Amino acid sequence: MFHKILIANRGEIAVRIIRACKEMGIRSVAVYSEADRDAMHTRLADESVCIGPAPSNQSYLNIAALMAAAELTDAEAIHPGFGFLAENAEFASIVNESGLVWIGPTPESMRIMGDKVTAKKKMVDAGVPLVPGSDGAVETVEEARAIAKEAGFPIIIKASAGGGGRGMKVVHSETSLANAFSMCKSEAASCFGDDTVFIEKYLEQPRHIEVQVLGDTHGNLIHLFERECSMQRNNQKVLEEAPSAFLDPETREKICAAGVAAAAAVDYEGAGTIEFLMNSDKSFYFMEMNTRIQVEHPVTEWITGVDLIEWQIRVAYGEKLAFSQENIKIKGHAIECRINAEHPFKFTPSPGTVELYHAPGGRSVRVDSQLYTGYKIPPHYDSMIGKVITHARDREKCIRRMQRAIDELVILGVTTNQELHQRLLANPGFQSGDFNIHFLEKWLNQMSL
Amino acid sequence: MFHKILIANRGEIAVRIIRACKEMGIRSVAVYSEADRDAMHTRLADESVCIGPAPSNQSYLNIAALMAAAELTDAEAIHPGFGFLAENAEFASIVNESGLVWIGPTPESMRIMGDKVTAKKKMVDAGVPLVPGSDGAVETVEEARAIAKEAGFPIIIKASAGGGGRGMKVVHSETSLANAFSMCKSEAASCFGDDTVFIEKYLEQPRHIEVQVLGDTHGNLIHLFERECSMQRNNQKVLEEAPSAFLDPETREKICAAGVAAAAAVDYEGAGTIEFLMNSDKSFYFMEMNTRIQVEHPVTEWITGVDLIEWQIRVAYGEKLAFSQENIKIKGHAIECRINAEHPFKFTPSPGTVELYHAPGGRSVRVDSQLYTGYKIPPHYDSMIGKVITHARDREKCIRRMQRAIDELVILGVTTNQELHQRLLANPGFQSGDFNIHFLEKWLNQMSL
Repeated sequence: MFHKILIANRGEIAVRIIRACKEMGIRSVAVYSEADRDAMHTRLADESVCIGPAPSNQSYLNIAALMAAAELTDAEAIHPGFGFLAENAEFASIVNESGLVWIGPTPESMRIMGDKVTAKKKMVDAGVPLVPGSDGAVETVEEARAIAKEAGFPIIIKASAGGGGRGMKVVHSETSLANAFSMCKSEAASCFGDDTVFIEKYLEQPRHIEVQVLGDTHGNLIHLFERECSMQRNNQKVLEEAPSAFLDPETREKICAAGVAAAAAVDYEGAGTIEFLMNSDKSFYFMEMNTRIQVEHPVTEWITGVDLIEWQIRVAYGEKLAFSQENIKIKGHAIECRINAEHPFKFTPSPGTVELYHAPGGRSVRVDSQLYTGYKIPPHYDSMIGKVITHARDREKCIRRMQRAIDELVILGVTTNQELHQRLLANPGFQSGDFNIHFLEKWLNQMSL
Repeated sequence: MFHKILIANRGEIAVRIIRACKEMGIRSVAVYSEADRDAMHTRLADESVCIGPAPSNQSYLNIAALMAAAELTDAEAIHPGFGFLAENAEFASIVNESGLVWIGPTPESMRIMGDKVTAKKKMVDAGVPLVPGSDGAVETVEEARAIAKEAGFPIIIKASAGGGGRGMKVVHSETSLANAFSMCKSEAASCFGDDTVFIEKYLEQPRHIEVQVLGDTHGNLIHLFERECSMQRNNQKVLEEAPSAFLDPETREKICAAGVAAAAAVDYEGAGTIEFLMNSDKSFYFMEMNTRIQVEHPVTEWITGVDLIEWQIRVAYGEKLAFSQENIKIKGHAIECRINAEHPFKFTPSPGTVELYHAPGGRSVRVDSQLYTGYKIPPHYDSMIGKVITHARDREKCIRRMQRAIDELVILGVTTNQELHQRLLANPGFQSGDFNIHFLEKWLNQMSL
């Protein structure tokens, strides 16, 4: 096994990886910016190297500084965590070429999945469903009609040059199609100076459901079931679960098989996630693949018993997976609440000094956090300062356990989204399990504060 | 289900029970002594009632005050935790007779198991092995010889009036028996004024292995495997594990069956533990039954997935066990380290104010504790202030996980036994799994401090 790993990251994920190293008997090297001199990851690692000033491009995104730190400390491998350079194929190549081991997939897999067009082409070849629609621009109403017929109503007509919700029209039936098509085209021309439009099947109340996969370098590739990540705001996940309350066994088998097929199409090695949108009729469509560990990996670890960081490291070292698809079973239910240093409803960031930190304890509660009493949260980075994860035999009990865990959490000195979680966990819509990716934003909009 | 439960205890076990209540949607009532006004259990419960001054006999052992608190708050049931009145059959009877529910076995089961003589008789009838030896006083050398022959050497001759290691003689063969017998008798006469002696088979390097059982009021009674509790000092457990590294499947089946037989002999309801001594040849002998939840219950919870406090409550309410013996499987390995406010090697208690408390986090680490930053540990009670529990797929990984968890634990302001655990976890004798109940004391004696 590796003797020493450098962790090219900060915050709770760096702490998570350092803990995995300690448990595997591997020495860990933390890198830190000048703003992170007193950070938990800097303190917890066996060695720590300052790699530059606070701005990320001068430190955590500074490839030269990271490589120098690895050389200086004789690290044999680099774990990129998530964010920063985790999906940078160029960095992965440099790491590999300098004789170190990149703890992640091959740069080639990363490149393919990092490019939307190439990735979609690969998915079509692999039989992974994409949102039905036009293959590029739609010129005429007749074309539009044919595409709509194939995709099925409702459809959405989108201006190629549009964005942020503008230049879109949802069409529910053929009667209004011709009119909507020409309106959308002329609006696009006048708003964006470009009348190019394309058509996609419109998913009215989609869920975000993603599949965790894990492959080794010996051709073994398995899934570790799905995660339900529909609780989002501004495309930022707030609370994640595994398994999804929405899936029946048949749909679960299908979407997980699609996840494996997607990963197999790029000869995937290591831990990765295939994100899907799922329609209310349980049809699902590939969105993208994240070629790295994800924030919400602990919920999968809890329901499957597989330590994903440990297996990222083992696979990168060349070990074979010690389990096959048949060995992976869902045990109970797990939920993760992301704790952010931000106003719970206005979402303004709230850096500052943590005057008191008290983590929840007790049975089946896990806390992954970089916090400690006296820690000064720097203003330069992501607002996520921790995650509370609970597990129980079923979703209902898991929610109650999370409620009592979130109630026990004490973070004084900075504003956090603790109250958002308290209210969300108590919300009947969340508790019912019947929600989609619009739920949280709608609820926040309706909230009288 | 119950609407409200009163917890007749304090410290981490009261916190544990309050958490279980919250997760079950049951209101909790804490009772507290004047010294525990700011204790975690007092703060965490839905309601709190002061039951008297700090000395236990005026508060936590004060049955009248406890019953008044239950009446005052309309509690429907009382959970006694461990220690204090948990094994007091009289209290259990009073609770039952006043129309409340005692969360524990029947007073009758408690009475039988609380009396050593009656308990042993019951065990003989139930076919549960007792340490072979004399049936009371041994008068003559001939008697002694016959008993030694049946029990097998080595044997130990004990003065009935002795205690604390005095008035005992270990005899390894028949040649020295006559001499030892008369010496022991005359010593007993001169030291204790009573020459009564009895004889038992001497277990040279026994392990303390105990079996967790759980019964309902519908005649279902199962075991949840064993715990290894040989790491003791002064008969106080310091570190516990499940399963025991010493047991092969056959011995495990035997001792667990003996545990169930022992409990069945007293029609046991609720959670209980049968403590055995196990010889190096894997023969084992009943010591006693604890008719209550035990400190070390979390290791069993982790390897079996059964929430013991929840099931104590469910069973007391009259529910049937939702699982049978066949459903209970051992998953991985769990270790618990008891954190005590005491000098790690001199064992002098160390009450005082906790200036900083930081609990370990991350995957498969559980912390049950009453600590918080600023908490004043009162001098009146047990020195145990928390427990760190880890789980992993095997013992080796579990030990490494515990090492990193114990290293992360920060308790400033009071002296704790953290360093004892750090040294013990690193000790090859502990790591090998090859130890007995004398290991810790021997090691402490040899330690040059």
